[in-house]
Amino acid sequence: MKAQRFSMGCRSALLVGATLAGVLGTTVTVRAQALKDLQTPDTPLVLKAQGSFYVGGEKSEQTEVQLGSLGPGGHITVNQMYVRYMVPQGGDGNVPVVMVHGATLTGKSWETTPDGRMGWDEYFVRKGHPVYVPDQVGRGRSGFNQAVFNNVRAGTTPAGDQPAMFRFSDEVVWPNFRFGSKPGEPFPDSQFPVQAADELSKQGVPDVSRLLPTPNPTFKALSELAGQLKGAVLMGHSQSGSFPLEAALLNPAAAKGLVLVEPGRCPDTYSEEQITTLATVPILVVFGDHRDTPTGLTTLPTWQARFEACQTMISRLKRAGGQAQMLSPAETGFRGNSHMIMQDKNHLQIADLILQWIDAHVSKQRVGGR
Amino acid sequence: MKAQRFSMGCRSALLVGATLAGVLGTTVTVRAQALKDLQTPDTPLVLKAQGSFYVGGEKSEQTEVQLGSLGPGGHITVNQMYVRYMVPQGGDGNVPVVMVHGATLTGKSWETTPDGRMGWDEYFVRKGHPVYVPDQVGRGRSGFNQAVFNNVRAGTTPAGDQPAMFRFSDEVVWPNFRFGSKPGEPFPDSQFPVQAADELSKQGVPDVSRLLPTPNPTFKALSELAGQLKGAVLMGHSQSGSFPLEAALLNPAAAKGLVLVEPGRCPDTYSEEQITTLATVPILVVFGDHRDTPTGLTTLPTWQARFEACQTMISRLKRAGGQAQMLSPAETGFRGNSHMIMQDKNHLQIADLILQWIDAHVSKQRVGGR
Repeated sequence: MKAQRFSMGCRSALLVGATLAGVLGTTVTVRAQALKDLQTPDTPLVLKAQGSFYVGGEKSEQTEVQLGSLGPGGHITVNQMYVRYMVPQGGDGNVPVVMVHGATLTGKSWETTPDGRMGWDEYFVRKGHPVYVPDQVGRGRSGFNQAVFNNVRAGTTPAGDQPAMFRFSDEVVWPNFRFGSKPGEPFPDSQFPVQAADELSKQGVPDVSRLLPTPNPTFKALSELAGQLKGAVLMGHSQSGSFPLEAALLNPAAAKGLVLVEPGRCPDTYSEEQITTLATVPILVVFGDHRDTPTGLTTLPTWQARFEACQTMISRLKRAGGQAQMLSPAETGFRGNSHMIMQDKNHLQIADLILQWIDAHVSKQRVGGR
Repeated sequence: MKAQRFSMGCRSALLVGATLAGVLGTTVTVRAQALKDLQTPDTPLVLKAQGSFYVGGEKSEQTEVQLGSLGPGGHITVNQMYVRYMVPQGGDGNVPVVMVHGATLTGKSWETTPDGRMGWDEYFVRKGHPVYVPDQVGRGRSGFNQAVFNNVRAGTTPAGDQPAMFRFSDEVVWPNFRFGSKPGEPFPDSQFPVQAADELSKQGVPDVSRLLPTPNPTFKALSELAGQLKGAVLMGHSQSGSFPLEAALLNPAAAKGLVLVEPGRCPDTYSEEQITTLATVPILVVFGDHRDTPTGLTTLPTWQARFEACQTMISRLKRAGGQAQMLSPAETGFRGNSHMIMQDKNHLQIADLILQWIDAHVSKQRVGGR
């Protein structure tokens, strides 16, 4: 991959002072800046198809209390995965790309950026790929199994049985997503549009992933989706960074390529047999800059530690004959990229490098479009 | 509006036997039929723009426990509203339509139907209108304030303080959404694609609307969205059927027209002053058939009772000089339409009637596109 130089823009810390001032009160109305900031592309987007559907899911029989006491007990569907898709005109024979979001977030991560620029979902479509954006099982439009919360409310289950719902505070996002070491103090070369940090804050939803059965149903749903698509590139981010690996182990033939964007983990627990299976699939791991920054969460290691775990996994895959490689500042020359690399100011340049990798390592054609 | 005859299709109850058989066990894998059933339109969809953004939201300062004990306390954003949008090429000067979903559902209601046909979101775009589809505050990609649930888990708040999370059982959906009087027994003229009832089931998410402050922040978010759009038609469904009325009262100039699809309520509590304000906005109320069916929820009245409340409101609006009218089987001749009228088999014919009403009663042009 060709290294590219990036002209660093030195961003003033003053620029975000106004944004952070809004954080001081307990309930301060956030200025709705989003609609007016939306950018319109120069050329229309021509779609053969778009829409949404679900993958997976199972029936759960629940009591009146578990259903919220609005009516009698009965069955609902749980553990299904919502997927929104766009197929470009003329691109339905190209390999589809599935983009999975991270912790406390939804598929929104891949749509319009917090400062109103085109998201990777549309950009990959414009580059000819059908794009499928799920909400992880348990999040957003995929919903979650509410039974235990209603049982706790009714007193029939101890309160400790309901799982914690995670959110990252705005203050923690700055070091953990590596916009800067402290809230309101961006790295001079930060690629994240920090003036729109309040818009990113709105993307946060409660993360009830501890509610989910083991293994996480999203793994199977992703492998099924890839199978139904007759092959797909699976892209994960952060919490879901390792999900493409898990889906590929369930159905390696359908995983045409894996892109792990700032993965929260590259497991060191895979057996040699699993590594041999994963070595049949081209794998790209993408990391940003400033990875040594303490995350602000004592429970979470630095991103450098995860980066190193991924380097170890890449080495194992290569020894097993796999095509696996790292895309980080050392390879690209880009500096200042954050954890939210798909929303960074140079996000389309990063996307181009991933698209080049797909072109080089993944068969662009698949047998028969949808 | 011109009355149209509808040729009744007599649907066999046997057809859904297989679907309902899956409901008997406690955890039965639902057949993933959705992707293969997706229908592709004959002509491409040409968009000037598409993407997503948020409206509203406020900062909430929370403790470590309230944030799920992953890191220290801090601020998050709550009560924001996610909005996905599509603007047709050449249609950005036309009046936008905002489509809001009902209880236990998300914006998915307006997307691809459970049996894979084009949703109203795309159809209205193809008819020239920019379309904006929110997730109500507290639902789907809009998230909700998880603080009380984490407090209850930690034992610092009584369990009864956390609100119930509602879901409709599959069994209750049949009479309440008026597919048939009993599960698995559709009305002979039912317009709902009952063979895809299991796909509708997947659209359900926990409804935590009792968690929300009063008034519901979605009202203000909708009025702000209409204002930012320089005028819009606001469409609500079921639980949100009255939301367009509330948004119009906050900003009547921005509410170019209101479409209340099977509204859960047409309030009888509006003052004469409020009715006078609402009489300045064209209002269409849309109802389906079989409204006398008991809902299967003793807490909820029949849809006929809501229909009659809406007739009363329409009469009040007319006496105040307003343009308000009912669109129901009595006016259209269509029989068998369900509560999920935007997913019914004749959904595009119903959409056409609404589009005709918009053309006749709402200024199609607005001052300046986005």
